[in-house]
Amino acid sequence: MSKPYGPLNPPGRLLLGPGPMMVEPRVYQALSKPIVGHLDPYFFQVVEEIRELLRMAFGTKNSFTMAISGTGSAGMEAAVANFVEPGDRVAIFANGYFCDRITEMVRRYGGDPVRLEKPWGEVFEDDEARQFLDRVQPRVVAFVHAETSTGALQQGRAICAAAHEVGALVIADCVTSLGGMPVNVDETGIDVAYSCSQKGLSCPPGLAPITVSERAMERLRARRTPPRSWYLDLKLLDDYYDGAHRYHHTAPISMFYALREALAIIAEEGLENRWERHRRNHLALVAGLEAMGLKMHVAPPHRLWVLNTPRVPDGIDDAGVRRRLLEQDGIEILGGFGPLAGKIFRIGLMGASSTEENVLRLLDALERALCAEGFRPAASGRRAAEQAYSVSAAQ
Amino acid sequence: MSKPYGPLNPPGRLLLGPGPMMVEPRVYQALSKPIVGHLDPYFFQVVEEIRELLRMAFGTKNSFTMAISGTGSAGMEAAVANFVEPGDRVAIFANGYFCDRITEMVRRYGGDPVRLEKPWGEVFEDDEARQFLDRVQPRVVAFVHAETSTGALQQGRAICAAAHEVGALVIADCVTSLGGMPVNVDETGIDVAYSCSQKGLSCPPGLAPITVSERAMERLRARRTPPRSWYLDLKLLDDYYDGAHRYHHTAPISMFYALREALAIIAEEGLENRWERHRRNHLALVAGLEAMGLKMHVAPPHRLWVLNTPRVPDGIDDAGVRRRLLEQDGIEILGGFGPLAGKIFRIGLMGASSTEENVLRLLDALERALCAEGFRPAASGRRAAEQAYSVSAAQ
Repeated sequence: MSKPYGPLNPPGRLLLGPGPMMVEPRVYQALSKPIVGHLDPYFFQVVEEIRELLRMAFGTKNSFTMAISGTGSAGMEAAVANFVEPGDRVAIFANGYFCDRITEMVRRYGGDPVRLEKPWGEVFEDDEARQFLDRVQPRVVAFVHAETSTGALQQGRAICAAAHEVGALVIADCVTSLGGMPVNVDETGIDVAYSCSQKGLSCPPGLAPITVSERAMERLRARRTPPRSWYLDLKLLDDYYDGAHRYHHTAPISMFYALREALAIIAEEGLENRWERHRRNHLALVAGLEAMGLKMHVAPPHRLWVLNTPRVPDGIDDAGVRRRLLEQDGIEILGGFGPLAGKIFRIGLMGASSTEENVLRLLDALERALCAEGFRPAASGRRAAEQAYSVSAAQ
Repeated sequence: MSKPYGPLNPPGRLLLGPGPMMVEPRVYQALSKPIVGHLDPYFFQVVEEIRELLRMAFGTKNSFTMAISGTGSAGMEAAVANFVEPGDRVAIFANGYFCDRITEMVRRYGGDPVRLEKPWGEVFEDDEARQFLDRVQPRVVAFVHAETSTGALQQGRAICAAAHEVGALVIADCVTSLGGMPVNVDETGIDVAYSCSQKGLSCPPGLAPITVSERAMERLRARRTPPRSWYLDLKLLDDYYDGAHRYHHTAPISMFYALREALAIIAEEGLENRWERHRRNHLALVAGLEAMGLKMHVAPPHRLWVLNTPRVPDGIDDAGVRRRLLEQDGIEILGGFGPLAGKIFRIGLMGASSTEENVLRLLDALERALCAEGFRPAASGRRAAEQAYSVSAAQ
């Protein structure tokens, strides 16, 4: 027997980019459990557990809560394909890359996107959100809760209230927030929230959790035409996962096992404990970065706990820094893109990646990499982070 | 720490339905290897290996050969979304469920489907295919190479030749044939072939291999409008996986690891050896089923080696038989649906499921289950299958 391809042997990486994140050994174990069929009673038992656990993570009582068989981007497309009908006016809060992607999808699905724009990294105040929606009178509103391209958090409460006043549904991209920061779908008033398996949930990429309010379900049932996408048709998916268990597609069983396990880990940690862990590690990292002399791109009240975006110091080649981190230390962080290309680093601390040990290891390695590129740190990042940890422990 | 959810503990099943199939331990090991980022140089190395190995499995030199981040149905939708433009006339050879699904997708994407129909389980002869395409003068032609709902094989050579004479592209659904039977994309003249990871490739479900001819790529580049689906836009996927490595979505890394390993196993076995193994186990199973007194639904020259469809004997409750197989023996087979509901069993012997041991184990268990439902077998299925194996070994 010839062996043209040796056994797969991936390098060990410490994943601290915008995702995917580190995966708990227990989730890898679940991934490698023997699969059952996609119509097996055991599979639907796993599906029910996932639905229940996702309701906990999203903070919702929505009956329609499940995982789409695609990555986070498939979740975004499912939201657009099902809730934007041809000709619908869609108001989009545009302050980063993922709002642009939503805009592109709305166009492709025949909607009429109307955008309120801000520079990447800024967010929308309650009043401007309300004025925008009053003026546009949209049928659908979309915003990105946690913008992975900038590191900024967009609060959703005022947007949702104003949208509902004009009779619009609200779609929220929670790809980077779910599992790492409060999402609180019901309390916020979000109608359609989608996410991914690989960031705050710390499962490998491949699934897109989604939850849909009863108000949005009514809209779906009243559609004039079926969604253009068959694969992402939520009514067909509902018939498969809920009630009738009517065959739609062959669900990615192993990924469902992994997602179930990742969510069970969250239930055991406790969602609020988990948020607090993310907040604490974020604050320590920022203390370290600022001590070294780096400036954060996003203003303090709007910073994500899960994705940190320090600016690249003047004159420093960000690609050189990142290459050195990857090659010398096996650490992945990513850079900015679009208007932020070369201007920010994107450092993710989500799920299993959000630990004190990783924060300190990254600060050490980043200091070495920055120095190699000619940067002179103002003070030790590690020492500032350690101090932040000891202060928060004393509280 | 509360433990509301115990560790995942799936039952051991022998998967002999229409898919998913059994998965080699080595593939499960690959699934549980530590992930890297979706822009990591190592990931693109795995992607290149998958592309090379898929060319081998598909029998093609097509540069554009990759895996879509969704299940086989996402592969089907990618084919329709990219190659059917609004208003395009699409000729569909309709003799089973998956042709109906293609028809539905063509409608949703604005195409104009024209169908040539046959009862489920029959296939189209060369002449009728040619006459149909001459008459319809379509822009796109679609057929299902191996129909999972019926167990019938549709030869593609005459369809492809006739389609190209009228300037049409040919889409072939190879979901059930790839890795288990000859597909030979280039030799047959198929322009767009898609499949799934979970049947003949014997990887868990979750990815959809796809290959596109240069002729079809030209059509894609000349599209008047971008495909309605962004997630399945093959030009964007090409920019991600090939050449520029421009970020599109976060690929499901673990599934890519698994697919790479499943394909490496095929390369080691040798594609033709693998086909022969599938043929041999199919013939032995059929010998056993016929000895018991069951009749095959599909005529001998058109039977799939990978999916066997014996008719349910008169007066026997197929659901009762299948339930007994699952509960008593842990074996999954499925029944028919649509016009074949209650009329056939669907027994898959693909990839790691296609072994002599599984054929014999199934025949024994099926005999017991049929007897429990009141059927009296004419002779021992096991003995007939063993005889078929000894004959084929002596040849």
